[in-house]
Amino acid sequence: MGLRTGDQYVDGLRNRKHVEIYVLGKQVDDVTTHPFLRPSVKAFKATFDAAFEEDTKELARAYSPFINEEVNRFVHIHRGPEDLVAKVKLLRRLSHKVGACFQRCVGWDALNTLFIITTRISEVEGRRTYLERFLNYLKYVQRNDLALAGAMTDVKGVRTLRPSEQPNLDSYVHVAEERSDGIIVRGAKANITGIAVVDEVIVMPTRAMTEKDADYAISFAIPLDSPGVKVVVGRQVNDARRLEDGEIDGLPYFFNHEGMLILEDVFVPWDRVFLYKDWAWAGQLVEVFSSFHRQGYAGCKAGLGDVVIGAAYNLAKQIGVADKAHVQDKLTEMVFLNETMYSAGLAASWEGRKVVSSGDGGWWVNPMYANVTKQLVTRFPYEIARLAHDIAGGIIGTAPSEADLRNPSLKGLLEKYLQGVQEYSAEERLRMLRLLENISLSVAYLIESVHGAGSPEAQRISMRRLYDLQIAEAISKRLAGLKVKIQWGKSIEPHRPSDIEK
Amino acid sequence: MGLRTGDQYVDGLRNRKHVEIYVLGKQVDDVTTHPFLRPSVKAFKATFDAAFEEDTKELARAYSPFINEEVNRFVHIHRGPEDLVAKVKLLRRLSHKVGACFQRCVGWDALNTLFIITTRISEVEGRRTYLERFLNYLKYVQRNDLALAGAMTDVKGVRTLRPSEQPNLDSYVHVAEERSDGIIVRGAKANITGIAVVDEVIVMPTRAMTEKDADYAISFAIPLDSPGVKVVVGRQVNDARRLEDGEIDGLPYFFNHEGMLILEDVFVPWDRVFLYKDWAWAGQLVEVFSSFHRQGYAGCKAGLGDVVIGAAYNLAKQIGVADKAHVQDKLTEMVFLNETMYSAGLAASWEGRKVVSSGDGGWWVNPMYANVTKQLVTRFPYEIARLAHDIAGGIIGTAPSEADLRNPSLKGLLEKYLQGVQEYSAEERLRMLRLLENISLSVAYLIESVHGAGSPEAQRISMRRLYDLQIAEAISKRLAGLKVKIQWGKSIEPHRPSDIEK
Amino acid sequence: MGLRTGDQYVDGLRNRKHVEIYVLGKQVDDVTTHPFLRPSVKAFKATFDAAFEEDTKELARAYSPFINEEVNRFVHIHRGPEDLVAKVKLLRRLSHKVGACFQRCVGWDALNTLFIITTRISEVEGRRTYLERFLNYLKYVQRNDLALAGAMTDVKGVRTLRPSEQPNLDSYVHVAEERSDGIIVRGAKANITGIAVVDEVIVMPTRAMTEKDADYAISFAIPLDSPGVKVVVGRQVNDARRLEDGEIDGLPYFFNHEGMLILEDVFVPWDRVFLYKDWAWAGQLVEVFSSFHRQGYAGCKAGLGDVVIGAAYNLAKQIGVADKAHVQDKLTEMVFLNETMYSAGLAASWEGRKVVSSGDGGWWVNPMYANVTKQLVTRFPYEIARLAHDIAGGIIGTAPSEADLRNPSLKGLLEKYLQGVQEYSAEERLRMLRLLENISLSVAYLIESVHGAGSPEAQRISMRRLYDLQIAEAISKRLAGLKVKIQWGKSIEPHRPSDIEK
Amino acid sequence: MGLRTGDQYVDGLRNRKHVEIYVLGKQVDDVTTHPFLRPSVKAFKATFDAAFEEDTKELARAYSPFINEEVNRFVHIHRGPEDLVAKVKLLRRLSHKVGACFQRCVGWDALNTLFIITTRISEVEGRRTYLERFLNYLKYVQRNDLALAGAMTDVKGVRTLRPSEQPNLDSYVHVAEERSDGIIVRGAKANITGIAVVDEVIVMPTRAMTEKDADYAISFAIPLDSPGVKVVVGRQVNDARRLEDGEIDGLPYFFNHEGMLILEDVFVPWDRVFLYKDWAWAGQLVEVFSSFHRQGYAGCKAGLGDVVIGAAYNLAKQIGVADKAHVQDKLTEMVFLNETMYSAGLAASWEGRKVVSSGDGGWWVNPMYANVTKQLVTRFPYEIARLAHDIAGGIIGTAPSEADLRNPSLKGLLEKYLQGVQEYSAEERLRMLRLLENISLSVAYLIESVHGAGSPEAQRISMRRLYDLQIAEAISKRLAGLKVKIQWGKSIEPHRPSDIEK
Repeated sequence: MGLRTGDQYVDGLRNRKHVEIYVLGKQVDDVTTHPFLRPSVKAFKATFDAAFEEDTKELARAYSPFINEEVNRFVHIHRGPEDLVAKVKLLRRLSHKVGACFQRCVGWDALNTLFIITTRISEVEGRRTYLERFLNYLKYVQRNDLALAGAMTDVKGVRTLRPSEQPNLDSYVHVAEERSDGIIVRGAKANITGIAVVDEVIVMPTRAMTEKDADYAISFAIPLDSPGVKVVVGRQVNDARRLEDGEIDGLPYFFNHEGMLILEDVFVPWDRVFLYKDWAWAGQLVEVFSSFHRQGYAGCKAGLGDVVIGAAYNLAKQIGVADKAHVQDKLTEMVFLNETMYSAGLAASWEGRKVVSSGDGGWWVNPMYANVTKQLVTRFPYEIARLAHDIAGGIIGTAPSEADLRNPSLKGLLEKYLQGVQEYSAEERLRMLRLLENISLSVAYLIESVHGAGSPEAQRISMRRLYDLQIAEAISKRLAGLKVKIQWGKSIEPHRPSDIEK
Repeated sequence: MGLRTGDQYVDGLRNRKHVEIYVLGKQVDDVTTHPFLRPSVKAFKATFDAAFEEDTKELARAYSPFINEEVNRFVHIHRGPEDLVAKVKLLRRLSHKVGACFQRCVGWDALNTLFIITTRISEVEGRRTYLERFLNYLKYVQRNDLALAGAMTDVKGVRTLRPSEQPNLDSYVHVAEERSDGIIVRGAKANITGIAVVDEVIVMPTRAMTEKDADYAISFAIPLDSPGVKVVVGRQVNDARRLEDGEIDGLPYFFNHEGMLILEDVFVPWDRVFLYKDWAWAGQLVEVFSSFHRQGYAGCKAGLGDVVIGAAYNLAKQIGVADKAHVQDKLTEMVFLNETMYSAGLAASWEGRKVVSSGDGGWWVNPMYANVTKQLVTRFPYEIARLAHDIAGGIIGTAPSEADLRNPSLKGLLEKYLQGVQEYSAEERLRMLRLLENISLSVAYLIESVHGAGSPEAQRISMRRLYDLQIAEAISKRLAGLKVKIQWGKSIEPHRPSDIEK
Repeated sequence: MGLRTGDQYVDGLRNRKHVEIYVLGKQVDDVTTHPFLRPSVKAFKATFDAAFEEDTKELARAYSPFINEEVNRFVHIHRGPEDLVAKVKLLRRLSHKVGACFQRCVGWDALNTLFIITTRISEVEGRRTYLERFLNYLKYVQRNDLALAGAMTDVKGVRTLRPSEQPNLDSYVHVAEERSDGIIVRGAKANITGIAVVDEVIVMPTRAMTEKDADYAISFAIPLDSPGVKVVVGRQVNDARRLEDGEIDGLPYFFNHEGMLILEDVFVPWDRVFLYKDWAWAGQLVEVFSSFHRQGYAGCKAGLGDVVIGAAYNLAKQIGVADKAHVQDKLTEMVFLNETMYSAGLAASWEGRKVVSSGDGGWWVNPMYANVTKQLVTRFPYEIARLAHDIAGGIIGTAPSEADLRNPSLKGLLEKYLQGVQEYSAEERLRMLRLLENISLSVAYLIESVHGAGSPEAQRISMRRLYDLQIAEAISKRLAGLKVKIQWGKSIEPHRPSDIEK
Repeated sequence: MGLRTGDQYVDGLRNRKHVEIYVLGKQVDDVTTHPFLRPSVKAFKATFDAAFEEDTKELARAYSPFINEEVNRFVHIHRGPEDLVAKVKLLRRLSHKVGACFQRCVGWDALNTLFIITTRISEVEGRRTYLERFLNYLKYVQRNDLALAGAMTDVKGVRTLRPSEQPNLDSYVHVAEERSDGIIVRGAKANITGIAVVDEVIVMPTRAMTEKDADYAISFAIPLDSPGVKVVVGRQVNDARRLEDGEIDGLPYFFNHEGMLILEDVFVPWDRVFLYKDWAWAGQLVEVFSSFHRQGYAGCKAGLGDVVIGAAYNLAKQIGVADKAHVQDKLTEMVFLNETMYSAGLAASWEGRKVVSSGDGGWWVNPMYANVTKQLVTRFPYEIARLAHDIAGGIIGTAPSEADLRNPSLKGLLEKYLQGVQEYSAEERLRMLRLLENISLSVAYLIESVHGAGSPEAQRISMRRLYDLQIAEAISKRLAGLKVKIQWGKSIEPHRPSDIEK
């Protein structure tokens, strides 16, 4: 089958069997037409269309040796630093088209993670079953160009307790029953991006496990329309506006969503099980995945940053102040913050390396720079948003509705009073204000930037572990004229690509 | 009549003549019951109730020598530093009750500003008419405990042009016709806080003026139900949720609003005109007002900060992480930022002084610290919000709706999966998440903090002017052993309370 | 005797008995002429001269009811908020004259602390001995206008162990022997400001103590020339330049110093002992002192900030860029940061209150704002310094020496090449560059700002304790529609002046 | 001749003809033994030794096609992204050995800049003379492994005037006379790194020029011992300590220096002139050079950051607090800031590209990320320094001298009182404190980070120019549903590697 167009993806969603999907307390029949979810479908769709549009198709396609044809990059296994770099460049460019999260990265990162983990289990322990199952699944995904979600974050219950210690033993997804033909799984995954509009979902453990938690150390893939699956779509800032008529206020073009994926005793056949009670590998799986996902934020959040910068610049022009020194300075600061995030992601990509010995893939990002990227992303969008609000003026929080502008009793007055310089109309101003409001205060730009791919403290723990303080100390001791015991050599540079190799 | 209760205020609104008020493109009949505006009425109402509630009434009342009785502090003329301090303390405490802007400060600051300006015109130029008119109006306001808005910000058109140079000559409110019994005014004021739910509005010029702009240098008060008044209520983040049923998602208890006040040839009788073509006084009026208003932000925004901190703390407890070092550290940082804003406001208050020679009032804040306060407020709430989102977890952007929780098919599952530690229910978690979402991303907490009482650059211009770089330079030259020409004396300390005295 | 002039203070130092004072490994005979210490003497001297100079004498004098005459404010017991405010205003102004730490605050804060603690012991426990001894000592200090150091910070050994658990039992100063006429003390105090140039030193415990640490819970005063006292003066950035000839590079006018005070079995008569094994009071003593000292930093560091701002401004003028938008913006940012610190200190002062029931004094600062002040001071000077370096240009790190400028072979060339605009000479540029270098990178402006009056984490612990998270949580719960158990009332405002009253 | 050892470099300096070099007002005979300059010689020497030491030689050598042999990387012309990456990796590693600026980058960047500019003049205008001269010079430099300085920054006089408009016409280096065999140049260059300890210096213009400034648009190379050359070595923080005995306080091992290079009618033969009155190329030369140099700061400043982090970590261990949560958090923040700078530099390197059509070289960094790198470097070292001071404790500003520790009367006391945990001696503590003091407050770590390779505003101007605001605006307009005129295509991504190609 091969590369699908966006329309084919949408058709596929329509052909899904019924899934129990809830939005604002009610079940949804057709996600492709539901006003709350349609913008998410359109955003996801953009990842398919990218493979056919002039300005993105080169980045959005890649050759897959597994099925020996071109695939959409969002289901591609990275084969070198250039692929890792292409990822962040593609994400930035797609953000320009969508202005929201397009929701297809988590599934992509899950594929690459499982490729590495199943290969490593094969290489290190000689157990090839997981790898074989996964490669079959991968070919299936690539051949059908599937829309995948990735589900990692459990609802977690009491944060200080391990899965097996929880008062509610379903706080983490786990195997509830083992059968000859597969397993029954139960639990819920939270904050799952794009979950209502995918073909399949790949489920992964959310943390390192001990032997007692073995039942929770599982990874598998299921079609979203598997019996027992429930999806509860989450609320977002300004979401209720999507239900309104009009084409300005709710920015109804594109949006993303997250949701809770509830698995009520869902059956998974063995050939879809990629990790089963292998508790010792759970931690590494999480580490590999999270670095992949942290790297990616360089692209999509810098891309959203471009939109925010562009909107602020346009609004400054609309009132005639774009050339003022303090406006120029703020725009420059926004650019600087935005490019800082992006450059860290590029470094994470270029400095990636192959962390398996065999196979056509297995390239991983540099985890230090991936963590640096994400830590920057947890901070800078709030600052960029603040500067954009500053430039836009107070009207960003007080502009009238599109309906006011359309009301004949007000139209003339608002056209007169909302206009700045004569080259722009009141409607242009309102459109740009709404775009900026909707994006700069969105879950995608703010909350996801803080928590996606792990909360800020998770990156700090990773950075602390990746940086070798002993070597830094030895460097300082040597300079201070003190005796140093550490063996000098390659390791003097405290940037080990990863502990994964040990 | 004297102090009104909140209910009396609401009754008053119901007794207003018809005002042309638009919300989402439609005219509103009764603001007190309209779902979009009712929360604003409740927030405004809290300023009246404060004068009768145990924990606030001491702060919320003050003795007025003008009518020789106790008045609500929100219509009081400050009579010393203690009054200025009481203002910020009251605002902080009221924020705790309302969790939103209660919208009555602008009118209050307008009263105090006009007291100073009309007194000074009387003192400096011997023209007592404005002062007499104003004192009569003040007594009327105090006796009837009116709900006042203040309208300063014009729509401004092209920012780089003066009022009289604009292509649209109505870009700034101006006198359109002078009559024997009063004046006809035209134009529009933007971003007017609480405008739909007040009894009267005080209109002021928004910038310093030159002689050519004399028609724009006017200040006056009108009842909101004056003929020719139109109000277009602005949209805010999450506003459409107010129209939903349910009591959690939209936080329907309290909210504020801003709106555009359109004056279509409105008549103002002479006794309500407090500045008329006196262009030379417009700049000082703006300076006096803006410092008053900048000071106040210490109270209300620190109060909202307390709510955000409390919500973050509660959410941390709900998942069992409140004692973790990094959570404690983030809470401490939030406290530190919050108290920094507040302490600057206290300094602005305590260091205030009387800037007129006569009369029972005329106390002004220290403008340097008032500007420092507001500049801090333009930055720290975004940082506090970010830290709160960090502590709250990703669920702050993905939590399901109240309707989901009420749906019998989901209720059990959500109660199970949203719960953290056993002491708290899923509903408690959802309530607190929504509160935090609704406040931390609100116009009141973010956009208003940036732009209210003047955008960040306005404070920077003020600080630059208030700080005497020449004296700082002289201090340095003396220390460097260079000759200094400046006359040493009192002025060595670069904290002149105000240029206004010169 | 009463108020001393600066010269009388210097004479007093000359009349001290021999003290074992070490500078750069050698004993110093006369601190008043030693090139390393003379600048410190001059800085300290300024606190005496302030009481006689026109522009400071009003602030620098206060009436003491204890000896019924005017005293130098640096030995005054605060009698109201105005005194607390006068403190920070005086400190700012003195910094303008000295450009360094004048070193007399610690002793002053120690006096006020002991006044409160000995009064409270008297009030709470009925033991009046300490108070009587202290009042006698206070009168002696005031009558003779003594130069006092305060010594709190012990050398501390292993930070995680209590005094009595240390491998080195002298890691904290303690009583080594009790005698009928007094006690013998042993140990060392680190980082003692001005220690080599004082008449007396007041020693205080550095932390809360348990019963096991009772021997360490002591406070007393001794003349610096007591037998057994050793002082080792510490090194500072650029200190060796003081030993050079010339009058520019080393900024030889004013400087401060810190040193280690070593007490080798020093005898203290009972009437100089103000706390003796009263371990339960040690924590409160530290809290009272540290808040006093944290407040003070608002004055002296903002004063140094003025010098840094003035120098940067002058250097910008010297090369013709003072009016450039980005330079103006940086200057404004420096002003903003500087005034933020100062305003927090003013709030701490104005919001102070009397924390004892009896006596003519006992006014304490608001501890929350005092901690906020100091926390700001741990951050902003580094930022102000960075901005000053930015404005000054790279030459701030590469300017030639005064000796180069004086060398006839270079003089003409340097006068030609160091000059910017014609109004300023090369020497003027060099002088200002050196001033900025010497102050902006000084221990007084950077290191002391971080660690003086307690390291940053100490303020964070204090702020965390002073802010009532339970009340903030209750506020949020009430707004979220949840039940709240806390009793509402006065305490709703989370700014309790101090726990000391409980 | 080929690769030189460090000792050979030092011998070379001894064999220089006499150069008029001034330090603290006196001429220096032998820079290799002068206590003020010897540490600079040792730092520079490390760049030569790096080519022979095990842990660096792979990075420090490269194959030169110009002389067909291995050369020291510091005289290598980059031949691909790997070379650009190797640059920043080598610089970081060398910083670990030197703990100061090793001063050889400017000359290196000058070589690469002149390669590009002379090649481009040849390609664009067909004039090959400059290229031929330069290639000859390059081979000479590579064959003799010369120590080069680069001199760009003029003394500049009045900053707002062009070179030809200055009151002092020597404010910028210029041609004073044209002769048949070469040119006579006059003027002075400021802030020249390492200038006293090099073999040769490459002089470049410091800004874009107009036709009137043609005399100032010159670039050339001269041996430092050319007649008419004068060097005035600048002062630095703590420099006077280098003149002391002892091996701890002054950190006498390594140091860098900057100085003023005065050219008093120096003769330059034509074959050393690489740009002559070609004013139109001056701007591009500056742009190419500054991006190269801004990229490099990622390596050396991150390397110094490692030293600062290591020292802080060691000091925390010495007092037993390394495991405390707040200390760990501060160390993590330092790591994060440090790796952010580094990753931006890696991105600038990996995303570099060849900007000439011919020749074996001509690879340039990505200018956007190079500017981002440097902008980060202007801010983060101050923050890292502050955090290091925080961890180190107040003793960082008050520690006694080495001479005190050596004094028998104090030795025992200081060994007792300076020690923290028993595993470390007082001397170890003192050594590490001095290292941290000397590096964290050094010109190399602070001032150079602000001003090296252009002051902060220069990077902001570059970033503003490199980021295409029009495209960002178009992106936003498209999303807002507005018409967009811009031609879509490759250029949608606002990261043009360089304008140089146009």
